Amino acid sequence: MIKAHDHDYQHAGTACEGYWAFDEGKSGKRPGILVAHEWNGLQDYVKKRTQMLAEMGYVAFAADIFGKGVRAKSFPECEKISAPYYQDRALTRGRAQAGLDLLAKHPNVDTSKMAAIGYCFGGIVVLELARSGAPLKGVVAFHGQLNTPNAADAKNIKGKVLVLHGAIDPVVPPAEVAAFEKEMEDAKVDWQLVSYGGAVHTFTNWNLPTTGMPAAYNEKADKRSWLAMKNFFAEVLGQ
Amino acid sequence: MIKAHDHDYQHAGTACEGYWAFDEGKSGKRPGILVAHEWNGLQDYVKKRTQMLAEMGYVAFAADIFGKGVRAKSFPECEKISAPYYQDRALTRGRAQAGLDLLAKHPNVDTSKMAAIGYCFGGIVVLELARSGAPLKGVVAFHGQLNTPNAADAKNIKGKVLVLHGAIDPVVPPAEVAAFEKEMEDAKVDWQLVSYGGAVHTFTNWNLPTTGMPAAYNEKADKRSWLAMKNFFAEVLGQ
Repeated sequence: MIKAHDHDYQHAGTACEGYWAFDEGKSGKRPGILVAHEWNGLQDYVKKRTQMLAEMGYVAFAADIFGKGVRAKSFPECEKISAPYYQDRALTRGRAQAGLDLLAKHPNVDTSKMAAIGYCFGGIVVLELARSGAPLKGVVAFHGQLNTPNAADAKNIKGKVLVLHGAIDPVVPPAEVAAFEKEMEDAKVDWQLVSYGGAVHTFTNWNLPTTGMPAAYNEKADKRSWLAMKNFFAEVLGQ
Repeated sequence: MIKAHDHDYQHAGTACEGYWAFDEGKSGKRPGILVAHEWNGLQDYVKKRTQMLAEMGYVAFAADIFGKGVRAKSFPECEKISAPYYQDRALTRGRAQAGLDLLAKHPNVDTSKMAAIGYCFGGIVVLELARSGAPLKGVVAFHGQLNTPNAADAKNIKGKVLVLHGAIDPVVPPAEVAAFEKEMEDAKVDWQLVSYGGAVHTFTNWNLPTTGMPAAYNEKADKRSWLAMKNFFAEVLGQ
């Protein structure tokens, strides 16, 4: 039986509202997965993904990066609420770390088996968290943005990295992908990148229409990328 | 019980020696997989891959592209025996088609479920075969070369395409990858490309040393790419 609920917490004086999901009928330690939301804030889509991770047997926590109640309904609102966190990566790392700290304290989490997944802006979040040296066995970015002002910090990455990328994503263009690949190679990170043909930005989000630019749902790429994540977790978490 | 054996056949007056592998204890129709060898010709490495496909339940046939006995032991020999087939793509397509025709005639092959995999030069082979309009449900290129003088023929591709690529493969450089991706997008092919960080050319071939340029074995990328192929076949062949 999956238990899922909002959870109030604080980071550096900011009220946050995250979201837990785990199987309460299951005892014992298991891997913990941190989930990082898109640029519209922690909304139903990411909550559903958090539940899906719980159904796979993990303890999952969706961190609230923007703060309680800070959720966008329109494109300009998304730009406005996310901008400070694209800008101030130290703040973003701290906010992500606060979520990871909570996850690590969950009585059922095996802290030697933690990983993080992020969507779009959440790619920034989980990759910056990894660059900060957080004890993550793996990081998965779904149509994640890959840019960073902190490329040299890639040497701190402790786990493996999987990027699941829309091949024609105009939000994450080839130059950004190339810079990221170079960053990973230079730091000798264990990384992989899958390009899904025909997929644009946000290809996993079933709330979007299936055609159009720059973002659209792509069912094939969604299913393939979720399976790629499962296989990656089987490798890096052992379950 | 896997039955595996060499098989003499002809293509356009040229004697060829291919290699079959299938489970002779298994009855009924099943998918057929064509295997295309590296630039050194059909040798033990590719025979072993053919056997591994048979162990997965497929009927597998390794085509002989260069002709019976044409096998290279040195780098210059590889260059010499492969050059005509890089050059004359119509010949290469024909040679590959001869192998596919044999596969299709095997009594246990379900001809509605055929696919092809190729290694290095074999990437050229299976992709050209697909561009010729061959009835393949899927094509997999392992560290395959992706260039073609026939980009417009991509519109003939009937199945799905999976490229498993070494991210720092100097034999298949970024410009070749980019041109291939554009070719696939322009033709609206269902394609995916996985880049394995730290992997150079020929990363699946366990006969190579594990370090060095331009080619080296990479166990992680080998295992991950084989799993990616399995998942792809599960999707495109249904088993």
